[in-house]
Amino acid sequence: MAKEDVLYQHGTLALLVPGLYDGTMSISELLTHGDTGIGTADGLDGEMVILEGKAYQISGKGKVREMSPDELTPFANVHFDDATNDYDRKDMTSDALEQEIFKAHPFANQFFAYRIVGTFSHVETRAIDKQKPPYPPLAEAAKSQHIFKADNVAGTLIGYYSPDLYQGTTSAGFHVHFLSDDHKFGGHVLVYALKEGKVSLQTFSDFNLHLPVHDSRFVRADLNDPELDKQIKDAEH
Amino acid sequence: MAKEDVLYQHGTLALLVPGLYDGTMSISELLTHGDTGIGTADGLDGEMVILEGKAYQISGKGKVREMSPDELTPFANVHFDDATNDYDRKDMTSDALEQEIFKAHPFANQFFAYRIVGTFSHVETRAIDKQKPPYPPLAEAAKSQHIFKADNVAGTLIGYYSPDLYQGTTSAGFHVHFLSDDHKFGGHVLVYALKEGKVSLQTFSDFNLHLPVHDSRFVRADLNDPELDKQIKDAEH
Repeated sequence: MAKEDVLYQHGTLALLVPGLYDGTMSISELLTHGDTGIGTADGLDGEMVILEGKAYQISGKGKVREMSPDELTPFANVHFDDATNDYDRKDMTSDALEQEIFKAHPFANQFFAYRIVGTFSHVETRAIDKQKPPYPPLAEAAKSQHIFKADNVAGTLIGYYSPDLYQGTTSAGFHVHFLSDDHKFGGHVLVYALKEGKVSLQTFSDFNLHLPVHDSRFVRADLNDPELDKQIKDAEH
Repeated sequence: MAKEDVLYQHGTLALLVPGLYDGTMSISELLTHGDTGIGTADGLDGEMVILEGKAYQISGKGKVREMSPDELTPFANVHFDDATNDYDRKDMTSDALEQEIFKAHPFANQFFAYRIVGTFSHVETRAIDKQKPPYPPLAEAAKSQHIFKADNVAGTLIGYYSPDLYQGTTSAGFHVHFLSDDHKFGGHVLVYALKEGKVSLQTFSDFNLHLPVHDSRFVRADLNDPELDKQIKDAEH
């Protein structure tokens, strides 16, 4: 397999649910596994967007900054950009954009990256404040999220689709973040509508799940929450 | 990461449930990802054991033979052997052997290989007959399994532990196969008791899930069986 066929993930999504927010991989190490992606920062400190080998953090205050190589992340997805399906679209809602993918391609059972570069008539994001130990569960932390809205904003929407089967390992379905071209707006995307832009898809044959097996909290945690599905949906959608 | 830190899997377990038994990876390609492992053969034809870079098939008739490089598998797990936890045990049941691992090590949230080389006071295995298209679902195919029993048998028990979180991607919990030293007995292990032998454990930081994304049946299949957990437990335990 080529490196472009691999979606790399540091951490399993279920570790965030009970509150394991301490960073367990450096940004410099994460970037050896991909130049494009999304994630969160140490302490669940905001939302992360990785573009062209640079990691940006959108904080709970809505501020965007580039992260340094030695900062840590508890959870992130990256891949090496090599989108093979590019097409132009305009004036479409998020639902229409996402549904047309499955009408055109049989991608429901595979992981793929989803990116739109263009101008958005509307984007609504959220970002969570940095949490302090002892960390609250994700459902509790998500209550402190801040909502940000922008109209007619130029930028990049980037993220992934994971099949339902992998809920718990990932946040199943589409999971996308946003960063505006002027670096003044971004976050975990709740709603969006495209004015005009280029959509790119990149499918993966391989999903490389990397676990923080040297982290004592991770190895001793109870990750089998009977309400895992609900907790993830409430916090991530 | 070193290659010994990776558990490689071809196929997701959920694809076997509706009956996607056609082989989608050659044995020669599989062996580039590991020298040790378990799996099944094209058409769900028996049970596979991989030891020291050689793949053996135990058929529904209980016959053992070495597989050729160009044969295909729909589902298999392999890794490069580098067991770091070795210890001798005698006169223990499978339950006692498996439970003591978690008393000694905090391994519940990670993938690990589990191998015992020794003499077993009792081993009970099953092997499924090769299925013919149109393939029946796994629950139906498992009804045609043959049960084999052996007492005081020398051989190798090999397989994996996967955390509950990954049920559907894998068969969660312990999933082990057996091959006797004389190559006259083996299969998917249902029950065993150890007389005397060496237990080896090898933990993995990385789980590499490889999907047959070029297989038209896989990409178009409905893998979201609402009874997936039950179907896997019924067929694999």
